[in-house]
This record gives sequence, structure tokens and C-alpha cells, in this order.
Amino acid sequence: MANPIDFYFDYSSPYGYIAAMKIDDLAARHARIVNWKPILLGAVFKVTGAQPLPSLPLKGDYARRDIARSARFHGIRINHPSKFPIATQAPARAFYWLNDRDPALARKLAKILYQAYFVEDRDISSPEVTAGVAATLGLKRDEVLAAMAEPAIKERVRTETDAAIKLGVFGSPYIVIDGESFWGVDRFDQIERWLAQGPF
Amino acid sequence: MANPIDFYFDYSSPYGYIAAMKIDDLAARHARIVNWKPILLGAVFKVTGAQPLPSLPLKGDYARRDIARSARFHGIRINHPSKFPIATQAPARAFYWLNDRDPALARKLAKILYQAYFVEDRDISSPEVTAGVAATLGLKRDEVLAAMAEPAIKERVRTETDAAIKLGVFGSPYIVIDGESFWGVDRFDQIERWLAQGPF
Repeated sequence: MANPIDFYFDYSSPYGYIAAMKIDDLAARHARIVNWKPILLGAVFKVTGAQPLPSLPLKGDYARRDIARSARFHGIRINHPSKFPIATQAPARAFYWLNDRDPALARKLAKILYQAYFVEDRDISSPEVTAGVAATLGLKRDEVLAAMAEPAIKERVRTETDAAIKLGVFGSPYIVIDGESFWGVDRFDQIERWLAQGPF
Repeated sequence: MANPIDFYFDYSSPYGYIAAMKIDDLAARHARIVNWKPILLGAVFKVTGAQPLPSLPLKGDYARRDIARSARFHGIRINHPSKFPIATQAPARAFYWLNDRDPALARKLAKILYQAYFVEDRDISSPEVTAGVAATLGLKRDEVLAAMAEPAIKERVRTETDAAIKLGVFGSPYIVIDGESFWGVDRFDQIERWLAQGPF
């Protein structure tokens, strides 16, 4: 089987959310699987000097409109969260903890956490909210809460983020296929061609 | 006839160049015409605090690769210019001067100036080089040089750029259709749908 696709994203990234709703289907059409890799864009931005979209003059206004239009274009439901952006340690920790135990369930969790934030406007920066979302998959709320508080899991999110920065990841979504990097859900057309035909 | 499409671009923008090679055809398929509007991204970046892509950590390396791949994806020839970015007053001035006289010829000039820079690696920041490119269209080299030195034409480029900033233009290419803004050649898929179906 061909290499898996590495999918880097931050839980506070609207374009990451749109990508997350589409990437497994895209990969499956080309007999690939996806390694989901939540990262902390705040740590990345410290290295690159970038700033969250809404804080940028002119670009922020455009982004709000473009996000809504891009979601409609891709047929994905989105509501701009009332708190945005948010810190995303809690959902990232819950994901990596579960991913070591049950990767398929972890992918499911990744998606419903994104939907909780970008559709239901639930503040998943709160460990309690993240654990509550995990509970809807049959996970034990207290176990998830305890996992997110473990030093090893906290460290895991930091090392995954550092490794991503070392690889050159500077945004979300950021997709790596056979060593080739694609930034943004607006590169899905190029990704589709790459997966179908190989390098172009 | 439906409203024209406003196409804002900077002559030093690689994604602007790719868009420039495609936008007239795209518009024509939907019975629209294109208002070409060169602007000075340097003046825009002073307002937004943005910086040229190549100067950004991580993002610069990605951009060089993405520009080449995006050009191949769209079937457009590109060579990374040896001097990049450049000041683009000269080609912008030549364009507006000609546009007041012969808009169709000005569009032709816009495209061959872009090709001179991004295919033939000619430094169009130089008025002499820009006038030389214009001469290949049958324009008088000395007349073009004199036009670019006129205070009114210099001012024209500044007022066009200021007007663009006021409208919210923060990058290149930036396309406005019936009041809706699209940033980037990677929005051409959304533009195509917008032109075909109207607002979505």
C-alpha cells in the first residue's frame, strides 16, 4: 500500500476543519490512509512571526467572508464560533491519547471535536467540554480528563508540534504526501491530481 | 452585459502572473470583460504589515515550491526571476497610460510585461526594459518612456493603489465580481462557480 498522508491541523483553524471533513474520503479514493496530526498553531506562529487571521488588517474581514463561502463551496456546514481563536491543547491531547489506543476511533473523535467547535459553537479549549464530546463516542469522561492532565500527553503535543515545525509546517491545514507539501484546503485540487497521477 | 470583473495585481506577484494568464479566458466563458488594475503591493503591505513571501520563515521555502507546482498545475510556464521581488512602478505606469488610449492593447501589454518578467527573467522594474517590451507591440519606445516620467501618471498609480486599499485589496491577485472579493489564483474554482451560477 502507498504511504499514508500526513495531515497537520490546529483545532482552531476553520480551513483545517473544512479539510478535516473531506480528507479521509479524498485519501480513500486513492487507496491511501491519513495520519491525523493535531498541532498547536500558536507555537508555530512564535517561530514564523505569523498572526491569527482575524487580527490582520483587511485580511481579517476578507477571511471571515472567505471561510463561510469556502465552506459552502465544499458543501460543509460552518458557524463562526463566538470565541475565536481558542487554545487547542485539550482536544490535541485527547486525540493523541486515544490515537495510541484506537486510531480509527481517534479519527472519529478528531472530526466530532471539530464539529463541536465549528458547528455547535462549543468551546473545546475546555478539557471538560472536550471530555464531554469524547463521551459521546462511548469513552469514559473521567478517563479522558485524567489522560489530558498526564505530563506525558502534554509533552507529546509539544513534541508533535516541534517535529511539525522542523518539517516546515507553518499553517493549517498542511498536508504532506510522499515528501511533497500542500498548504490549505485550496490545494485539494492539486492533491487530487498528485494522488491520481503522481508528481506533476 | 454583466458587470466587468475587477482584477487587481502587482507585477511582482507570481500568483498574479498565473491569474493574468487565465483570467480573460475565464471571463470570456461567462460573457464578462476584465478591468486590469495593476497596483503597488509595497504600499499595500505598509498598511497591512504583511511582508513579501520569500522573506517569511518556512513559508518562503514552501512558496517557491508551490509557485512552480501551481504554474504546472495551471499549465503556465514560469521561471523564478533572478531578482525578486521588484519595484513595479514602471510597468504599472506604462499600463495605465496605455489603458486610457487603447484598453485592448493595454491588456496585451499587461500580459507580455508579466511574461517578460516571469518567463524571460527581464527586470521590468527598469523603465527602459518596460519601454522595450512595449515597443514589441508597436508602441514608440521614447513615447512610453516619457509617459512613465509624467507626474500625472505617477500620481495615477498611487491613486489606483490607494483606492484599492480602501476597497480592502490586501494581496495579489485580488478579484472583485459584483461586489464579492476573491483572493488568490486558488479561488478560480469558486470564481468559476460564481460566474456560472451567481452567489452561492
